[in-house]
Amino acid sequence: MNAEIIAVGSELLLGQIVNTNARFLSQQLAGLGINVYFHTVVGDNPDRLKSAIEIAQKRAEIIIFSGGLGPTKDDLTKETIARQLGKELVIDETALASIELFFKRTNRVMTENNRKQALVLAGSHILPNDHGMAPGMVVESGGHTYMLLPGPPKEMEPMFLRYGTQALSTRNKSNERIVSRVLRFFGIGEAALETEIIDLIDAQSNPTIAPLAGDGEVTLRLTAKHVDENAAQAMLDELEKTINQRLGAFLYGYDNTSLLIEVMKSLKERNLTITAAESLTGGLFQQELTSISGASSVFYGGIVCYSNEVKRQLLDVQEETLKTHGAVSEQCARELAENASKVFKTDIGISFTGVAGPEELEGKPVGTIYIGIAIKGKPTIVEKITLGGTREANRSRAVKFGCYFLLRILKESQNAN
Amino acid sequence: MNAEIIAVGSELLLGQIVNTNARFLSQQLAGLGINVYFHTVVGDNPDRLKSAIEIAQKRAEIIIFSGGLGPTKDDLTKETIARQLGKELVIDETALASIELFFKRTNRVMTENNRKQALVLAGSHILPNDHGMAPGMVVESGGHTYMLLPGPPKEMEPMFLRYGTQALSTRNKSNERIVSRVLRFFGIGEAALETEIIDLIDAQSNPTIAPLAGDGEVTLRLTAKHVDENAAQAMLDELEKTINQRLGAFLYGYDNTSLLIEVMKSLKERNLTITAAESLTGGLFQQELTSISGASSVFYGGIVCYSNEVKRQLLDVQEETLKTHGAVSEQCARELAENASKVFKTDIGISFTGVAGPEELEGKPVGTIYIGIAIKGKPTIVEKITLGGTREANRSRAVKFGCYFLLRILKESQNAN
Repeated sequence: MNAEIIAVGSELLLGQIVNTNARFLSQQLAGLGINVYFHTVVGDNPDRLKSAIEIAQKRAEIIIFSGGLGPTKDDLTKETIARQLGKELVIDETALASIELFFKRTNRVMTENNRKQALVLAGSHILPNDHGMAPGMVVESGGHTYMLLPGPPKEMEPMFLRYGTQALSTRNKSNERIVSRVLRFFGIGEAALETEIIDLIDAQSNPTIAPLAGDGEVTLRLTAKHVDENAAQAMLDELEKTINQRLGAFLYGYDNTSLLIEVMKSLKERNLTITAAESLTGGLFQQELTSISGASSVFYGGIVCYSNEVKRQLLDVQEETLKTHGAVSEQCARELAENASKVFKTDIGISFTGVAGPEELEGKPVGTIYIGIAIKGKPTIVEKITLGGTREANRSRAVKFGCYFLLRILKESQNAN
Repeated sequence: MNAEIIAVGSELLLGQIVNTNARFLSQQLAGLGINVYFHTVVGDNPDRLKSAIEIAQKRAEIIIFSGGLGPTKDDLTKETIARQLGKELVIDETALASIELFFKRTNRVMTENNRKQALVLAGSHILPNDHGMAPGMVVESGGHTYMLLPGPPKEMEPMFLRYGTQALSTRNKSNERIVSRVLRFFGIGEAALETEIIDLIDAQSNPTIAPLAGDGEVTLRLTAKHVDENAAQAMLDELEKTINQRLGAFLYGYDNTSLLIEVMKSLKERNLTITAAESLTGGLFQQELTSISGASSVFYGGIVCYSNEVKRQLLDVQEETLKTHGAVSEQCARELAENASKVFKTDIGISFTGVAGPEELEGKPVGTIYIGIAIKGKPTIVEKITLGGTREANRSRAVKFGCYFLLRILKESQNAN
């Protein structure tokens, strides 16, 4: 069974808003075992909407519309579909009563065009709108299922979850469940990762394997179909095991996580606190750490040490170090990490020093970065990395590498215990 | 002239990511005077991509693809278009050299499939990729313009801005120049701003006025069409003058700037240095300031003072202040700003303390924020703001307000001199 999602609204074609409805509905449909092969966005124009419907009728069994159910002139989804299917629009008395009630409750005057929102396709199954006025609807015609949903996500999402999924599941005759799992990797490029598992990718059918790269990370989305959800999960377990035998060293998490979230989890589990001395990253590590609610249990504060003067005065980096090796050096990264953890009285100090770009520094090329990690009772580790991106990318990548190295050390020391 | 945007990638159809590329390109095309009538999303499937191309050929003059130019097997945009247009794929030596250089510079081993990224449609105009490996391309065929762009926004957006717009403007045969100017406002909501200029918006034709709100800012994009570019600019000047008579107090900049960039410019002009003591913002102000190249001339470093202990020990906030007023208070913001500028020996100290959320703090509700600004030789100013967003939005909005207040003070003191 497959579906197409048609979002109606000129504001999407002007780039005023982004089509989050298509994303939400796609996620939900995947969970229901319904394939989505196309998204379409069309403006508030009856001829173009009609042509979009005709195209969708040729390639999808279920057609889901979002938007164009409102009270104004340019809201024409219902009207266009009614004409296309040869159906009447009739007033739904329940919807009308609920619209009238809404105006009464908010002490507002109901204008005539608000009645338009209570018009529904004759013979359709109504999806109540618990968060707004325009009702949704589902109608069967010529072997297709048409579902009409309002545009505002605050109305559409709860309507789909509460009433829409039920309406669709009665149509799903195969009863197949689709289960997905995202594996997140760091420290390996997309091409290199694919090379390691090219035989699995070539042979894939069920489960499928979809690689995706972005922001210096690579993910693999594994998707299995089975009538029994547990069986689908077991298929994913099996495939994941095979993949991890080859790539496990680079795997850092699952689904909606991030390297920073994993660092935070890891510190909390071990009751460890951390501080940072950031030169080229300018506060990015601390900013991202504190963007996670609850950071205060592992982080009290830290320093942005942009100039050598601040490195010397506040973090006690030796004059000699700066003179002999420079700020972009292993020695400086080591002193920054160790001294920061002393100043802020934490278990761990992490430091970032390097050349973000666009100009080279101390004769060292753009992308030269040292990351220091000082953990109480262990020898301090300094990793050197060489990046090739823009200033922004180098800073963001440096923070990710810092998290990656730190996670590795925390895991290793756990295994050693 | 009209365009269709085709985003290629199964991750979009699975709802793993949202189609921000269509939004970005739509905004840009609107600015170039090119109508967008449809967006299509299709998966990594050659037959369905072929059918999407055939449909777009019937309804659009310009077809812009994003995604599917990567090194892996499921990247098949180029291959499918080549077959559809009867064109060869050939190695672009410049692109290949740049890919090889990238691997050399980052000390990584180039795998064979990375060569695939240097394949381009024969006879196409190449759009260099300054932030990644896969080049973009533009090719004319059968009266259509095909533009192929990479999927990652960090590569696609700069490529389109730097090389793509130029390639499209040569196609614009009407000889009319389209000139746009974006006015950026802060400190006023979208509805209030629109109310001030509703007569201008209602009467608009050429130039047009397009308001857009996002991230706590409102912009107005003014767009004029004229065969003479100078005449178009003069039309914009005239309209801007009228708008600024009503809204000038909230205008902070033009086009691709930001509050932080304006702060940096302002500090440089006045030869002033700044430091920051950040509690709820956790380093966000410093991170954003240092993301601008050249920050080192105005910024040496600063502190993230997340805990009270750090506020007391490193920034000398009085025990009494924390006990009587708490960390979220005017008094604390004042001491943080003043003492930070002493510790870091700068002309200006800015501080952020407050309740980001999701939990209240010291009995103060989420969104209560104090921003301190201490300038050498002037009385310290503390502004209290009350925000109603999520943790992330409150932090980001606080930084913007800090910049806005600081800009206002710097401008006022200039006017007073």
